Order: sequence, then structure tokens, then C-alpha cells
Amino acid sequence: MHRSRIGIVLVDHPEEHAAEGLAFWAGVQGVTPVREDSPEYHSLGTTGSLHLAAQRTGPGTQPRVHLDIETDDVPAEVARVRALGATIVEERRGYTILQDPAGVVFCVVPVQTGDDFEREARTWE
Amino acid sequence: MHRSRIGIVLVDHPEEHAAEGLAFWAGVQGVTPVREDSPEYHSLGTTGSLHLAAQRTGPGTQPRVHLDIETDDVPAEVARVRALGATIVEERRGYTILQDPAGVVFCVVPVQTGDDFEREARTWE
Repeated sequence: MHRSRIGIVLVDHPEEHAAEGLAFWAGVQGVTPVREDSPEYHSLGTTGSLHLAAQRTGPGTQPRVHLDIETDDVPAEVARVRALGATIVEERRGYTILQDPAGVVFCVVPVQTGDDFEREARTWE
Repeated sequence: MHRSRIGIVLVDHPEEHAAEGLAFWAGVQGVTPVREDSPEYHSLGTTGSLHLAAQRTGPGTQPRVHLDIETDDVPAEVARVRALGATIVEERRGYTILQDPAGVVFCVVPVQTGDDFEREARTWE
């Protein structure tokens, strides 16, 4: 038994456009970006109980939005979404990058949002 | 003075993968998809106060996630995000497709989420 929810929306910007992309979404939200522990991530506040963040990605990478599914058991959630038809793109330390059956990239990550996760995560048997 | 918020997350699937893409995200959410008025859209419930939907897009289009900013004044919100650096991709009846300074596509749409919008939208002077 484990829990998960879609908890984070990330806007990915290639580094050559990362500064203006970050400033843009901060303006959309009306917030000041907060740099996270890892310098390529900035928090852009919340939209409801979802957390919005910007990620600076490598030069020439595709600008995009991706979703993070947060979970209290990454291997169990990866197994669940693989059984639903996802395929693994890359396993990283502590989290996994996958794509859906049509090629939409998303990640399965450890719990990021604390109380929001506790309130809203679903339990999977 | 108008109001807006990021209110809807859409997963866009080209029609050749739309059925399995829709089934996948319904499974992630643990819901049964609900077909909306327009046959290319299915609601996939909520994640917190954000609404999740799948969109079937044209053959060969890029699978992706996009965000909808909902607002009580589409022209005013389009003007606001253009002033922040967005550019218009296409104006459609009642809504506008734009991209951020890095090329991330999003839409500005009329209010879709009723009470959630009322509770959470920000007011812009």
C-alpha cells in the first residue's frame, strides 16, 4: 500500500531562455521566485494545492511543462504507472523520469509538498 | 481590474495515441474520464483545486502538457501576459493560445472552474 498525487507542475526552460522564462511565470503568478537548494530550480508559489516551479534545463532542450507525481514509495509508484503503460526514460538518484504511452514526459518523485500531500494523496492497494 | 489563475492542466495527445494516453492518465488519477461537450476533451478530475483534462490533438502533433490560465476578462489577461513577455500563437473564438519567452505554449481561457476560481483567483489592477 502506498500513496501518490500529482503535486508539482514544472515549467522547463533551456538555459539560453531560462532567465526570461522564470521572470515571465513569476509575473503570471505575481510572486518573487525562490531559489531552491538545487540552483536550476525556482519555486513560483502555488496554484491551489499544486506547487509551481521553473527548471533550467540544458542548452537546446525543448521548452515544456511537465508534471511530477509525488509519492511515499517511489519504486511502488513507478511500478503502478508502468503497469498503466508508462515507460522509463531515466532513473536518477531518488526519482524516475518516465513517459506516458504517447510520449508525454513526467517524473515520479518523493513527497515534496508536506501537508498538501497528506491531505490529498490517494492510497493505492 | 480583472482576475485570473492557473486553473487547468491539460495533457495533449496526438490522435493516434489519444486513447491510450487518456486511459493512462485516468489510471494515474484513479478516475473514469468524463467526456466534455467538445469530443476532443475529457475531464480527469482534479488534483487539488486544479482541473486535469486530456485533449486529443491532430495527427502527428507533439505530445505535451499545457496550462490554461482562466480569467474573467480574456482580453485584459492576454494584455497582462503579453506585457510580461508572452507572444500570441493564435486567437480562437473565446480564447487565445500564446507562448512564453522560451516557447512554452499555454492558453488564456474564460473561467472554467467556478467556485475554485472564485476562491483562488488573483486580482490584477
